[in-house]
Order: sequence, then C-alpha cells, then structure tokens
Amino acid sequence: MRSRTIVELGGASAGWPALSKVMSQQPLLSSERPSSEQSDENANAEDALLTGELTNRGSLGGRRKYGWPFWREVGLFVWAVVATAAVIIIAVLYGHQTSKDNSGAHSCDTPRPGGKRNLIFMVSDGMGPTSLSLTRSFRQFELGLHPGDVLTLDKHFIGSSRTRSTSSLVTDSAAGATAFSCALKTYNGAVATLPDRTPCGTVLEAAKAAGYMTGLVVTTRITDATPACFAAHVNTRWEEDRVAEQEVGDYPLGRVVDLMLGGGRCHFLPNSTDGSCRGDEKDIVALAKMNGFNYISDREGFDRLQLGNTAKLPLLGLFAETDIPYEVDRRYLESTYPSLDEMARTALMALTKATQDSDKGFFLMIEGSRIDHAGHGNDPVAQVHEVLAYDKAFASVLKFLDDSNVDGVAISTSDHETGGLAAARQLHQSYPDYLWYPEVLANASHSSEHLAARLQSYLSSSSSSMKDNMRFINETLLHKDLGIRDATNDELQLLLDHPESSAFIFADIVSRRAQIGWTTHGHSAVDVNIYGSAGSEPLQGNHENTEIGEFIKDYLELDLNSVTEKLREKGTQSEMLTGDSDMKSWMAKLPEQGGREQDRLDLYHGSLRIRH
Amino acid sequence: MRSRTIVELGGASAGWPALSKVMSQQPLLSSERPSSEQSDENANAEDALLTGELTNRGSLGGRRKYGWPFWREVGLFVWAVVATAAVIIIAVLYGHQTSKDNSGAHSCDTPRPGGKRNLIFMVSDGMGPTSLSLTRSFRQFELGLHPGDVLTLDKHFIGSSRTRSTSSLVTDSAAGATAFSCALKTYNGAVATLPDRTPCGTVLEAAKAAGYMTGLVVTTRITDATPACFAAHVNTRWEEDRVAEQEVGDYPLGRVVDLMLGGGRCHFLPNSTDGSCRGDEKDIVALAKMNGFNYISDREGFDRLQLGNTAKLPLLGLFAETDIPYEVDRRYLESTYPSLDEMARTALMALTKATQDSDKGFFLMIEGSRIDHAGHGNDPVAQVHEVLAYDKAFASVLKFLDDSNVDGVAISTSDHETGGLAAARQLHQSYPDYLWYPEVLANASHSSEHLAARLQSYLSSSSSSMKDNMRFINETLLHKDLGIRDATNDELQLLLDHPESSAFIFADIVSRRAQIGWTTHGHSAVDVNIYGSAGSEPLQGNHENTEIGEFIKDYLELDLNSVTEKLREKGTQSEMLTGDSDMKSWMAKLPEQGGREQDRLDLYHGSLRIRH
Repeated sequence: MRSRTIVELGGASAGWPALSKVMSQQPLLSSERPSSEQSDENANAEDALLTGELTNRGSLGGRRKYGWPFWREVGLFVWAVVATAAVIIIAVLYGHQTSKDNSGAHSCDTPRPGGKRNLIFMVSDGMGPTSLSLTRSFRQFELGLHPGDVLTLDKHFIGSSRTRSTSSLVTDSAAGATAFSCALKTYNGAVATLPDRTPCGTVLEAAKAAGYMTGLVVTTRITDATPACFAAHVNTRWEEDRVAEQEVGDYPLGRVVDLMLGGGRCHFLPNSTDGSCRGDEKDIVALAKMNGFNYISDREGFDRLQLGNTAKLPLLGLFAETDIPYEVDRRYLESTYPSLDEMARTALMALTKATQDSDKGFFLMIEGSRIDHAGHGNDPVAQVHEVLAYDKAFASVLKFLDDSNVDGVAISTSDHETGGLAAARQLHQSYPDYLWYPEVLANASHSSEHLAARLQSYLSSSSSSMKDNMRFINETLLHKDLGIRDATNDELQLLLDHPESSAFIFADIVSRRAQIGWTTHGHSAVDVNIYGSAGSEPLQGNHENTEIGEFIKDYLELDLNSVTEKLREKGTQSEMLTGDSDMKSWMAKLPEQGGREQDRLDLYHGSLRIRH
Repeated sequence: MRSRTIVELGGASAGWPALSKVMSQQPLLSSERPSSEQSDENANAEDALLTGELTNRGSLGGRRKYGWPFWREVGLFVWAVVATAAVIIIAVLYGHQTSKDNSGAHSCDTPRPGGKRNLIFMVSDGMGPTSLSLTRSFRQFELGLHPGDVLTLDKHFIGSSRTRSTSSLVTDSAAGATAFSCALKTYNGAVATLPDRTPCGTVLEAAKAAGYMTGLVVTTRITDATPACFAAHVNTRWEEDRVAEQEVGDYPLGRVVDLMLGGGRCHFLPNSTDGSCRGDEKDIVALAKMNGFNYISDREGFDRLQLGNTAKLPLLGLFAETDIPYEVDRRYLESTYPSLDEMARTALMALTKATQDSDKGFFLMIEGSRIDHAGHGNDPVAQVHEVLAYDKAFASVLKFLDDSNVDGVAISTSDHETGGLAAARQLHQSYPDYLWYPEVLANASHSSEHLAARLQSYLSSSSSSMKDNMRFINETLLHKDLGIRDATNDELQLLLDHPESSAFIFADIVSRRAQIGWTTHGHSAVDVNIYGSAGSEPLQGNHENTEIGEFIKDYLELDLNSVTEKLREKGTQSEMLTGDSDMKSWMAKLPEQGGREQDRLDLYHGSLRIRH
C-alpha cells in the first residue's frame, strides 16, 4: 500500500540516502579517468594475471619496470573492483529485501517520530464473526458472484479483540468504546469514566491537545455510547442530554471535536421544540454555534458541503432526530438522509482540507452504529445491509489512504457481538439440515423496524375490518415488502395482536425461513474481528480491546495522562461522593445503586424491547 | 522462534556467503601490502588533498615526480576505500534488516528447497469463535486467573477460514477435511472424493509418496470423516467399514499411514466379535498386521510405548470401541484411555525417531475430534474441557517444534462451527442482562452424555419407585454430578419421561443456568479461526479452507496430482456410473439419490439426535 511504502522509506532513510550517494559517486570516480588509460591499466593487469609475468604496454611515459608500485596498483585495482562488485550485489539484495517487506502486510514499521499522520478508527458496533460470513454469502447470492468474491473487510482481516468489561464477561458499547478511547477497562454503561467515577482522557481529546483535527461520524445518535466515549465523560450512558452539551464544548476541555456527522438531533433541541427529546430547555444548537460550530440539519445542508470540499470546520451535522434509518430502508430515502459512506468521505475530505497546511493530521472515528441495532432486533435483513454499508465506507477509507500523501492508518473493529447470531438454525426436533437460505434475505426489501412502524401506523389510522387488516399484513407487509408468501394464520394473528412487538415478530418470521438463529436480543461475549490497513500490524493476532486504544495512542504519539489530569482539575463525581459536594458535578448523576440499567434500554434502541 | 530462524538463514543463504567472502578477502588484500608503504601512500595522498600540490615523501626508490600514474593510484585508492566503506555500511544495514525480519512473526520465508521438515496439522473439529471466549473465561474463573491469562491458542491466532462446501453454505466435516487434505472443495459427506465421484490425492498420501512418515491422531473413531479424508476415498462418510480397510492399506496406494492413534476399534473387528460394529466378517486388525502394523488396543499397550520412545512403526492404536470419552469424563478414567495430549506427544516422538536418519520429516494430523460432539450435544461443560484438552495438545506441539532441530511448522484450524454457540442467552421476554455464568460450568463434573448413560443404566436396571428415581436424578445426577441444586419439577419429570433424550435435557439445564445459547444441534456457517506457529505466516488473514490444504502442500513440496492420477488408474465410481461396471469399485457405494444423509447421523454422533 502506498501509505506504508512512504512510512517504510521514511524508516529506512538512514540507509538509503547513504547508499545512493555512494552508488552515484562511484561511476563518477571511474569516468574521471581517461578511458584509454583505463584500458592500458587493465591490459597490464590482465597480462600479469594471465602470464604470471609483468609486461608494460603503456603507450605514454617512461618504460621502466617497477616492482611494488605496480603491484600496489594492481592490488588497489582488484580491491576496488571487488569492493564495488560487493556494493552492487549487496545493494541488490538489500533492495530486494526492502521491497519484499513492502509487498505484504507484514511490516512492523512505525512512521517517523513527529511526522504528519492521520488515523481513521472504524467501529462496527455489534458486528460479530457470523455477521461476516452471513453478509459475504448474502452478497454473493444477490449479485451472482463467485464464492471467492469476498468483502473488502475480509481482505484486511488481521486479528480479534477480547471484549469483557470490568463489570461483566459481556460488555456494553460504553465500556467497549472506553477501552478504545481511554485504553482502559471500565464498567458497563460508563462513558469515558473509570470504576472509581473519575474521568479518563480519550485519544480524541489528546489528539486535539496535540494539534490534530478530530471528527466523529455515526449513523445513530451522536450522543450514543460509542461517539460519546471519545468526547464526553458521564457516569452512565443514559445521560445523553449532558453528552450533547459536552460534545459541543461545555466541559473542562472546551471544544475538542472539529466535525460531527450523524443523528441524535433531538438531544440538541430545547424541550419545548418540535423534535426534541431533551429533559430541559437548553438549546444545544445555539450553544454549538456560540462555540463556533457551523450547523446543518438536513440533506440540503449536507449536499452544500460537496462531499467536504466546501465544509467549514467546526461542523455539526445532525440528519435525524434519533437514528438514521437502516441502510435497507434509507436507500429509498436518499433525498433525506446521507449514507455512512457519504458522511465518511465528507469527513475525510473536510479534515484533509482543514489540515493541509498543518504539520499534524487528523483523528476520525467512523461508526457503523446500527449493525448493533439489527442484532438487538434479531433482524438479518437489516443486518446484512448495514454490514455492506459499513464495508463500503471501509473501502472508501482505504482508498483515501491510498490517494493521500500523508502517512495514515485505518483500523476497524467491533465493541462486541449483538444477538448471538448464528448462520444455522434448527427449527424442529429432528436433526437439522446443514444449510441456511440467503435468498430469503434477498427477497426482503425493508427492515422489520420499518415494517412494524408501517403496521402500527396503519392500524392506528384505519378503521378497517380485521379481514382488511389481515390482508394488509399478509399482502403488503409480508408478501410485497418482506418477500414472504407462506405466512401462517398464527403468524398473521400474532402480528395483528401485538403490533407493539411486531418488529421482533417480522424479524423472527424472516430468520426462521432463512434458518438463521439468534440466542438473545442483547450482546454476547464472543471475540470480535479486527481489520486494518498497512501499518496496523501491531494489532495482528488476538488482543484485549484496550490494546486497540493503546495502538491509537502510540500511532498518534498521544499523552492521555495529561488530559486525564486536566479533566480532574475540574472535580469529579467521586469527590461529591466523599462529601465535597459543593463542587459542581459536570459528569452528570451516578448510576442508581443496585439499579438495572438495562431497564432503560427500550428508550435507547428504538422499540427493540419486548414489553413484559 | 528457533525453528523459523533456521528457515530464515536458509532462505538468505544466497546472500550471506557472498558477503562474508568479500568481507574476509578485503582485509587479506590490504595486509598483503607492507604497512610502511601503505602509510607512505596515504601520506602522499593526504598531502595532495591538503595542499593541492603533489609531494613525494617515499623513503625508498626513485624520487621522480610522475603525473597520471600517481593520480591513477590515488583514484584507485579512493575508489577502493569508498567502495569498501559502502560494503560495510550496506552489510550492516542488510544484517539489521534480516534480523528485524527474524524478530517478529511477520516473515514469509519458506524453508530451503528440499530441506528436511515436519508439518503438524491440528483440527479442532466444530470449534467456532465463541468456543474460545467461553473456554478462556471458564479457565480464568476456575483457576482464579487474571483476565490477561489467555489460552495458548489465543497467543497464536493468525487468521480465519471460510468453510462452505460445494453443496451447501454449511459444510460437514467430510467436505471440510477434504478441503484440507486435497485442497479442493467438494460436497457434504464426501471423503477425499470430488463432486464427479472421482478420488483426489491427499497431502498425507503425497507426503508418503515423497518419503515423509505420516500419522493420524484423533479422539473419535479413526474412521470418522476428518481422519478418513487424509487416507481413504469413499463416496459418503458413512462407509466407515471401507475406510478402516483403506486406512490399513487395502486400496490402490497400499499402506500410506505409519501411525494411527484414536478410537473406532469396532470398525476393525469382524461382525461376530464382541465390540464389533462392522457389517461383515472381515478382520481388519488381522489385515493391518499382515500389512506390517503393530497393533495395540488398550492403555497398557499405550503405556508400553513410553510416550513414543519405544514405538515401532507402522503402529495402529485403537483405545475405544467408538469414541474416547469426553475429557471431562476421561479424567476419571486415566487408566483406561490416553488423553489427546498424551497421544499427540507419543506420535511426535515416534515419528521423530522413525525419521531421525531420513532426509524427510513427517506429516502428522491431530484432531480434537469431540469439540464437535459437545457442540452437537449443546453441552457447554463437555465443550470447555474438550477445548482445554486441545489447547494443551497444541502447546505440546509448539514445545516439540521449539525443541526440535528439524524445520517445522504447526497450524491449527476447524472444519466448521457446531451448535451455533453463543456466550449469551436470553431466557425471558424481558430485556436480557449482559452476562453469562462460568461458575455453572465449573460446578459440573461430567458431560451430559455421561449423565444420560448413567440415567438410562439406572432406570433399566432398577425397579425403584418413581420417587426413588426422582431422587436419583435430582440428588445424584443433577446435584452431585452437575452442580445443579435448583432443578424444577418439570425438569425432573422431563428427564424421567425421556431418558433417551436426556443428554440434550441435561445439557439444556446447564446451558440455561450458565446463560449460554445454542441455535442448532448441527453445524453453522461462521468462519473459524486459524492458529499457527512461526512459519505459518502465509495463512495470516481470512482464507478459503482450501488454502490451508495449499499451504500444507507447498510447505512439504508435495505433488497431489500424481497421487490423484495413481488413484484413478484403479477405476472410480464415476466409471461405474457410465456403464464400465465390471471395474470393481474400491470407493464404496454412491450416496442415495435424494437421500437425506443426516438421517443416518444418530449412528455416528452417539445419542445426540432427538428421536422423532
């Protein structure tokens, strides 16, 4: 890869210039000598070597025989020729060795200390190992491709990450993202906050302090756990209102993010405004503008950025009240919502332009946020399209690195798996066939979340007969949109009786027919994959998730500790606990003692939770 | 690693000798010249350089001034010195580069062409990505270890393998093992046979033909799909009787395996013998002996091998009628059954001794066969102990490579995942907690298969009251052996009513309490992990499973095509299909048209299948 080649040449710079200098000097020395004389010299030496007797065939100068001086010259000449031949041989070998190192993904080089560089960190939230084989085969089926036609991600698979948090073998996204952002383990629900309730400096904050530009791109709320863990510190992830405030600069470090693109507008609007989900009257968009942000809130504004060519930073772009729709639904709504790939390319261009005159590059986090939601919803249709959208953005990032003349690296990993997804499902007591059916997913054109919303909307607005309702469910939703022509009466009745849980029911109807299994609507503990561009070799193999944070820190040469110190100067929740309660807590309230945080999840993952 | 360092030096041999020759010649040339003269020469040259004017301070010989000859000598000297300096600089750089390549696991070197070498190929049948996180956390919990104390496998994780067969997205072990042994894709159930019903030469057969010694070590039947695919060719894996015959040499290539250790004795004994499962009266043990095999059938015979030190090849060791018990049960039966690790170490020693005077090494396949069975049984207790036993054997193989003075490499992978295992399980409609409980597995001391056999045996031999039966189930089986103290009446009743399916019921009782999920009793399509020692770098990243076969072939420099040709000389089933039916089929009968092969599976995976 081009970018690594530059790194490599940089790393070897102590060797190559010295060599090329020698190589270019040596012919110079030779050609300074008249060619006729050179051949006389050669002739004398050859005669001596061939006959064992010295002749002197020089055409000019005295015809004296002399002993040592002549032999001295022959010796010198042989020495020079042998040494020169050795130079050429070893130089060729060295060049071969170096180019061999450049040809694979096996180099361990680090960029020049202090050199300009970019790091793009991609998070495939909730994508486990099965997501890949599922999506790969789905794509091959849908596009009629050869089994060897794999995802871009597949071609850059380098390792895996162990994901447990301090509070459980099964992490949530907050503890998972804190492992990436602070390179430290913490408890489930903690947003860049440690088990002792003190904040930890993040790679984004440290990057900003070191002079890098910074960006966050997501398809869920920009205030959700993963992005929050890079630019905010709260005791529980449910404090998204507070996260919004911190992300635009209302916290001890001031503004640290230069670019934010995604959803979650509702946390930025005052409670009394249409489309707000804040618990108070604060206007965070106004606060953002006060702190210098350019604000856009729709596709029109996004298009004006011309994929980042005309973007002015700092930039806050919020394109959905909460989540941007699943890719499988969004593709019909291109005029309303940008895709992950469009946002990623816009961010790369905007940050490149903003850093073009800087000796520092940028840190950008890009999250395929809703792979996780498709897992929570046990929706294989939404899942494969989300993974494909992520794969496309990953390919764009690699292309960016290839085209850039700045050192850079991209890494991609997940915080955890979601759903206990398996590409195999036993439907009956009899021994199962070994297969699953990608065609079932290819026949579906919408997510179960979308179909559930359609069903709920239809039922609440129509006064149709039960028979009409059944027909709408069967013919429009199941047959037309989901490609299911064999729904049973029990399935139809279940949908009609439980529209509030219909997203799960639609997803189950598809999953069963595709023979795809799920074991939970929550997360699981399987190791997740790590992908990387050239330069990511330290992450080959199996790693603790915190080592990914360490890699980012090392690659960008960041000082997280000084950021942590700066954050703690302003007081922390832990000080409130020990009685120093006049100090204003900027980290929002503590988790409830003995509380079951998951009980609040239905507010944060759409309607994914089945009601009791 | 030691073994790779040797490989590396071998690979660079074209470069280093040339260099060392030059380096040793150069001082020789210098010292041939009298040191006084050398310093005169230097002095003259220095004067010229310093003053721009030529002096002659030579102490001997004529004091004549001369032009070109002198300058020629100066020029030659400068040339020689500069070239020599370049040699030294580049040699140092080259050495540095080479040692850098040796220091990491990032080298792509292959051993010297034709050099002696060993390859150990390990198969973790049915082990998917979740098996690893499950077993790692179980071990840490049970032994009170730090979360960073990972499995030996974890430390050697290098890539993943895509497993689909030609007949399905979900492979079986036969098509999976044929991908390893022939480096070709085939249909589910095919034992080293291609979709056109012709045999394909295997890496073991080609290794034997090339002069290597060969071995197979398993914990299931030595006639089961995985080992069979290396040394037999049949149209369907159910033909284990025929596989036994071929494995001892009754097929076109004669005897190709030098060592076999495992279970499956019943396929080697005539039908009328106790402990036989053959369909005919053939005595395969006698056939084996006729073909030169030393035969052992029990722990006593195994112990006499002294871990391979006194083994005489060819050797056939069959220690169980069918499968060797799960490790979780076998540990109480040490005096009857050897462990996978003991068999692996015995094989390594025996093959090492047998090849010590050969210029070829050995090919050894070691299978952790019953990880797959634990998956089929959805038994997490059996699973974690099987994986630990496999991890131990893997560590022994690495130690063997470290201690050996022969080039060698070890690779380990799975043919597929079994069970759709997830380390998370939602038990109720309410949103699940993010956790699973390793303590539940640590409390259990036996496999569900073992408990089911105990239950069936108790019920068939006792005339106890239902109350006594219930007490036996609850107090002895559940409480004492499985560590379950909260069984419900429904669970007890289910076990009592369905002793024939009780293995599944016991496994489900444990899995639910540990919050471990399964989606099938069959296989799933997730990519499986690849592990490797130094030297396995070509398998870094994501690969088709056939590329693992290619790696074996390349590493051992094997010619599979000529083996395939030789096999086909004797006729194949495909010729019978086209009417040439007087040619005896040595590949056993064709799969039934439209037959559902899985319906025979209950015969081959113990009592794993729920009866209809």
